[in-house]
Amino acid sequence: MNNCANIMNYETVAFDEEKNALLIIDQTQLPNKTVVLRLTNEKDIWEAIYLLKVRGAPAIGVAAAIGICVCAYTIQTDNYETFYVQFKKLKDYLGSSRPTAVNLFWALDRMEQVVVKNKECTVPHIKKLLQNEAKKMKEEDIAVCRSIGEYGLSLIADGDGILTHCNAGQLATAKYGTALAPIHLGREKGYNFKVFTDETRPLLQGARLSAYELFSNGIDTTVICDNTAAQVMKNGWVQAVFVGCDRVAANGDVCNKIGTSQVAILAKYYNIPFYVCAPASTIDMNTKTGSDIVIEQRPAHEVTEMWYKEPVSPAGVKVYNPAFDVSDNSLISAIVTERGIIRAPYGESLKKIFAS
Amino acid sequence: MNNCANIMNYETVAFDEEKNALLIIDQTQLPNKTVVLRLTNEKDIWEAIYLLKVRGAPAIGVAAAIGICVCAYTIQTDNYETFYVQFKKLKDYLGSSRPTAVNLFWALDRMEQVVVKNKECTVPHIKKLLQNEAKKMKEEDIAVCRSIGEYGLSLIADGDGILTHCNAGQLATAKYGTALAPIHLGREKGYNFKVFTDETRPLLQGARLSAYELFSNGIDTTVICDNTAAQVMKNGWVQAVFVGCDRVAANGDVCNKIGTSQVAILAKYYNIPFYVCAPASTIDMNTKTGSDIVIEQRPAHEVTEMWYKEPVSPAGVKVYNPAFDVSDNSLISAIVTERGIIRAPYGESLKKIFAS
Repeated sequence: MNNCANIMNYETVAFDEEKNALLIIDQTQLPNKTVVLRLTNEKDIWEAIYLLKVRGAPAIGVAAAIGICVCAYTIQTDNYETFYVQFKKLKDYLGSSRPTAVNLFWALDRMEQVVVKNKECTVPHIKKLLQNEAKKMKEEDIAVCRSIGEYGLSLIADGDGILTHCNAGQLATAKYGTALAPIHLGREKGYNFKVFTDETRPLLQGARLSAYELFSNGIDTTVICDNTAAQVMKNGWVQAVFVGCDRVAANGDVCNKIGTSQVAILAKYYNIPFYVCAPASTIDMNTKTGSDIVIEQRPAHEVTEMWYKEPVSPAGVKVYNPAFDVSDNSLISAIVTERGIIRAPYGESLKKIFAS
Repeated sequence: MNNCANIMNYETVAFDEEKNALLIIDQTQLPNKTVVLRLTNEKDIWEAIYLLKVRGAPAIGVAAAIGICVCAYTIQTDNYETFYVQFKKLKDYLGSSRPTAVNLFWALDRMEQVVVKNKECTVPHIKKLLQNEAKKMKEEDIAVCRSIGEYGLSLIADGDGILTHCNAGQLATAKYGTALAPIHLGREKGYNFKVFTDETRPLLQGARLSAYELFSNGIDTTVICDNTAAQVMKNGWVQAVFVGCDRVAANGDVCNKIGTSQVAILAKYYNIPFYVCAPASTIDMNTKTGSDIVIEQRPAHEVTEMWYKEPVSPAGVKVYNPAFDVSDNSLISAIVTERGIIRAPYGESLKKIFAS
């Protein structure tokens, strides 16, 4: 039945140092083909990020770090100033691939700091330091996800049914994912979970990506339409919901893929714990509440035309297609970070993890 | 912007008595093309029902009644027994087009009774009586829908935002629909509603059919993904939810298209009234509660392949695709029937409308 290449045998983002290449799984070809791309120049790396061949904030960050390192290695100079000018050009160029991706800039800034802080070093040595930094950023991402996975795993039991929305999995990070980390880690330890993945309209990240990475890793996976979550809960098949997040406000309100808040309301109704997996980097203490978050509105054709053989709605009809929604903190059983499990009242508990 | 042929200028199901033809809008070609089919023989009528060119329980019933009448007119005999044998053959044949459609058998049985009860009449006269009965059944359906519409309209105010799920509209009935009847009737009276229609995965009846019939009738219509209903409610854009139903149990539990119960839970959470529009014929006092209703399970390919250019999920992954769900009576603000508006406790109030 399962003809997928096992996702755990592939890395979402990898660094071939010997041949100086960034390797990524081309996510636009999933789930029908598992294609690993070998990227060795800035144009191809830019395009891979622009065309969402690599996606998910942490994965984009690591890909950008490795990517700029791969490109910097090909800069033909031993003069620091010349090197830095060309590095900055690369940084601006790669940064233009997805201007709304905060992690992209964070990663490129961090790489630039390596160049800035080591101006006393030779260019070949700086290149080596860049390589180390890129590898370190990947290792850090894996460690964060593994830690979230360990904490998440402590909340569930072998055999549990888990519902998830969108893709906050290995394909969005360097390894394990955030929301899916407890499941992948559990799988490593021999646990058997039954996972229900909302297809997550309109971009179908659940049907395409979560279903692919779970199923390919041998996990009991069932795809459901977004409107079927309540029925699955009513059947008693769900013991916990795990979702990722794009941003956590200081009061614990959570911004995530459209449809998340709906799942949170249903989980509350059916008394099922609703867990948000959030690297500490996504917690924004400067955002007071969810209502301070401006929601990106996406075009109509994603709902009425994308993926389809022909349009499914009458031409010209209005479409409301927000990319995200906000789940009220009252709906959230716990926020699982790499620093521990945080519970209400979130205003206080979130402050604490940054104080320590 | 609006290039749709106005649905209210077309009849979902019509009877051309002069030319002895059943006319239907081919719903499989909506929303991209408005094609009226003229059907004059049993093979084409069978196929139209089988291929869902006409769908929705009341519309199928009326189409079957007109259809068998059209076919019976072509039976070349004046001998009653010969006529009845051939009529029965027609009835069995048309009845095989959609074996799970209760309304199909109900309509064909009622037409057969015309033949059975008038055996003293000449065959030409029986044919005339069949014609009258088919027209009467259509008129009755329109009257039921109009009455539901009037009662429903009393529950809302001009300018209200209405959310609906699936298609319980004109396209599912002879005119007006059930859930959409208040909106179409309101439109006739000059009211302006803002309607949000869930796309209703996997068969997209909301995106394809409700959007088409509302938009083509000049109503302010917005298509949303099924996972966006909570956000629309949170925005304060919805003053009432109207849905249709497949069956109402004696305790007021409502079986309807998958996703309905989810909308009911969200409406409850946001304190928005949730109304079920139900012809009395769908109330089944022999079904004690919703849990007595067996839910039809549909194939995986409807979720992972249908409509799409290529499959969106990995081959072989499990899919849970129930056709219907049950909304608990505690979630339902009122059931709107042609006999009046029914409120909790439903056990008593439902009994009353059948007693009178």
